[in-house]
Amino acid sequence: MADIGVLLAEVVGEAHVLAGDAVSEDYAHDESLSAEPVLPAYVVRPSSAEEVAAVLRAANETGTPVTARGSGSGLSGSAIPRADGILVSFERMNRVLEIDTENHVAVVQPGVTLRELEERTAEVGLVYPVYPGELSASLGGNVATNAGGMRAIRYGVTRHQVLGLEAVLPTGEVIRTGGKFVKASTGYDLTQLIVGSEGTLALVTEAILKLQPRQSHQATVLAPFADLTEVTRAVPRVVDSGVGPLILEFIDGFTMAAMIHTSDLQLGIPDQVRESSQAYLVVMLENRSAERVEEDIAAVGELLTGLGAADVYVLPGPSARRLIEAREKAFFIAKAAGADDVIDTVVPRAALPEFFAKVLEIAQDNQTFIGGCGHAGDGNVHLAVFQKDPDVRYRVLHALFETGIALGGAISGEHGIGREKKRHYLELEDPTKVALLRRIKQAFDPNGILNPGAIFD
Amino acid sequence: MADIGVLLAEVVGEAHVLAGDAVSEDYAHDESLSAEPVLPAYVVRPSSAEEVAAVLRAANETGTPVTARGSGSGLSGSAIPRADGILVSFERMNRVLEIDTENHVAVVQPGVTLRELEERTAEVGLVYPVYPGELSASLGGNVATNAGGMRAIRYGVTRHQVLGLEAVLPTGEVIRTGGKFVKASTGYDLTQLIVGSEGTLALVTEAILKLQPRQSHQATVLAPFADLTEVTRAVPRVVDSGVGPLILEFIDGFTMAAMIHTSDLQLGIPDQVRESSQAYLVVMLENRSAERVEEDIAAVGELLTGLGAADVYVLPGPSARRLIEAREKAFFIAKAAGADDVIDTVVPRAALPEFFAKVLEIAQDNQTFIGGCGHAGDGNVHLAVFQKDPDVRYRVLHALFETGIALGGAISGEHGIGREKKRHYLELEDPTKVALLRRIKQAFDPNGILNPGAIFD
Repeated sequence: MADIGVLLAEVVGEAHVLAGDAVSEDYAHDESLSAEPVLPAYVVRPSSAEEVAAVLRAANETGTPVTARGSGSGLSGSAIPRADGILVSFERMNRVLEIDTENHVAVVQPGVTLRELEERTAEVGLVYPVYPGELSASLGGNVATNAGGMRAIRYGVTRHQVLGLEAVLPTGEVIRTGGKFVKASTGYDLTQLIVGSEGTLALVTEAILKLQPRQSHQATVLAPFADLTEVTRAVPRVVDSGVGPLILEFIDGFTMAAMIHTSDLQLGIPDQVRESSQAYLVVMLENRSAERVEEDIAAVGELLTGLGAADVYVLPGPSARRLIEAREKAFFIAKAAGADDVIDTVVPRAALPEFFAKVLEIAQDNQTFIGGCGHAGDGNVHLAVFQKDPDVRYRVLHALFETGIALGGAISGEHGIGREKKRHYLELEDPTKVALLRRIKQAFDPNGILNPGAIFD
Repeated sequence: MADIGVLLAEVVGEAHVLAGDAVSEDYAHDESLSAEPVLPAYVVRPSSAEEVAAVLRAANETGTPVTARGSGSGLSGSAIPRADGILVSFERMNRVLEIDTENHVAVVQPGVTLRELEERTAEVGLVYPVYPGELSASLGGNVATNAGGMRAIRYGVTRHQVLGLEAVLPTGEVIRTGGKFVKASTGYDLTQLIVGSEGTLALVTEAILKLQPRQSHQATVLAPFADLTEVTRAVPRVVDSGVGPLILEFIDGFTMAAMIHTSDLQLGIPDQVRESSQAYLVVMLENRSAERVEEDIAAVGELLTGLGAADVYVLPGPSARRLIEAREKAFFIAKAAGADDVIDTVVPRAALPEFFAKVLEIAQDNQTFIGGCGHAGDGNVHLAVFQKDPDVRYRVLHALFETGIALGGAISGEHGIGREKKRHYLELEDPTKVALLRRIKQAFDPNGILNPGAIFD
């Protein structure tokens, strides 16, 4: 490994290769709760695609594992390096290269954060609509995990915004895929294959992202329902109405109580209503005029009342923002409360009540506390699992994933498989598909240097 | 080949294997103008995924080429079989399996036509929004070519609607990808890899398609401009306005004249305006209320006038429908006029004027007539090339594609590469990417039986 240290310094400059004690603990982990932190042999901080390519050529020739890292805010351990490997940190490749207001795209380096992209697009009245909550997350990480978030019901997830990439193959070759256009039928879609591949196929050095016009007016409705079944029945009817909701979130009574307590939310819900409501639906709308938002909010309110809502609360801007912020912080609330793991299974949204009924059974059978909330519009359920015993926890997670898959869902909607869910994935996924994925991996990475240990063994 | 004929009859029943004179000319071609028709040795008409799997196993064991066919309305020759091969026609697998109004998806077999899906979704107030124009096209064909069409500016293309697939690998293994959900971060996205792969990776036997609420009110504005540069400048401003156009089409003066002549359109445009207008912008809007559509049409009209439109015509329903129908028929008008080839290069939409200026140069340099119109909102340009000499035509197409690529575009936005554009694709695409695509192909299809001759040699 001494040789490769010298090689890396030649590529990126000595100041940008860290080894030994110079490697801080930060590089050893992401935000996943149960994946083991690992310090890499080297951290390199390249400044260009050419440097990334040279690093990968050196790694490929020496068979050295390479793991990419954006902001380290991932939840599946896919940015955790190998002890004998190189961590490529994109912290220096953090420039917004272009905000193109004619083609409505942004061109960004992988280290750009969602916060910076939000600020830069706001200046010109546009928006990058993916909103996974954590604004310190990098676009490179978002592309690698196909990040989702609350606005997927309206705008889809990361893969629906990524129009093109510059990416470095494990062999050090640099390719460009797609471009500043939505339509393409010119060979296999490498863009879409690389999105969500968790750094195992190629390292993204540039992304072309679709932008949307920023709607200037927003409003939020909070509706308490007796239970989740009622919320689930209401969701497709809100979509049918044509108001085009930006956010359709479900919050259970327990989580709502915790959020109100932790964030000191003033929502104006009488105790009587809170006591009889096990489930809340949050509907955020946006439009180009205040009048239309008001009209639509009124229409949604009437609709939800007819569908059994105990009441309908139109939240003023600041309250709505605090509610959404509190909802975003659900992970950190769970973490602070001592959750041992967090999962984000996805099921067809109509299957949510059945899924939650099974979750309750699994929790009771295993004497485990499981709390959560979810993206009601898209069936993506975030569950915090409180269970110290790793064997019991393993069984609980396995049962939860198996249940989700049996209902037509998948293990992860937006966090990824990474290292944390790999064992479950390999046990539960169709072996034919796993074998096919391994052959695709081989087509990109014959020496298996890119993020070994993520998704596959 | 005698053996395989017997095997095929055992799988699908004798009545559903055609050979020799029983194979009609229809099976020899699609709608591409220059790809050579080829009669296959066998046509098989399976009725289930299991039958497709058995056909592929037999073909894989004997190394027999297999080409899939939907409605045969493709424009790149990717449904043209091999003379020594099997054509799998999906005409019997033509059922809408489910319209799910809770999860807002349709589950369809590949032989279902866009027309049938349109009718079935209309019954429940939903819509499958991809609108390539030819309603006899099959969903299987749409998935294989990643069909686009006029509504891409609002809803994206086929790949943005496909949430999951049942597909048969060339080895006869049946896999299921995705599901009734939008968010997924669970292994590589096989759905997206198979979409647009033109039947070279797997045969799709079922697709889960996202549906949208059907908006009940529509209106259309037609605005004549001095030239294409002005139209191009207007397009992003219409998007910025937030009205969310359903269609943003550009029609040049020549095509408009031909359309008015052929379709007897009554658009109410005075001769004086027509004479000074080389380019027209068509903006179609939809909304959930008639008032909003009227408001938005007025706003767009004002905006376009400010941006230099000679006038603004709000088209009543029937006129707008005829205009859009005439626009859809542009291909058949070009064909009837004796066009020798039709291409659909895509460029970043802001590059349209530069692209058309180069098209003019290429036309003049090669004494070739090139006419066309295009999807202004997404930079997808449909050009009819009139040039009988195949060598000159080859040079013209090559120059057009090269120009599009140099401007940041791609050879095809929605028709695909197929057999017709393969030579250009292999000459103009980055060899690193072509090599990678070949390795991916190998990962799916080690014996190379699926649609050999499409995309690759």
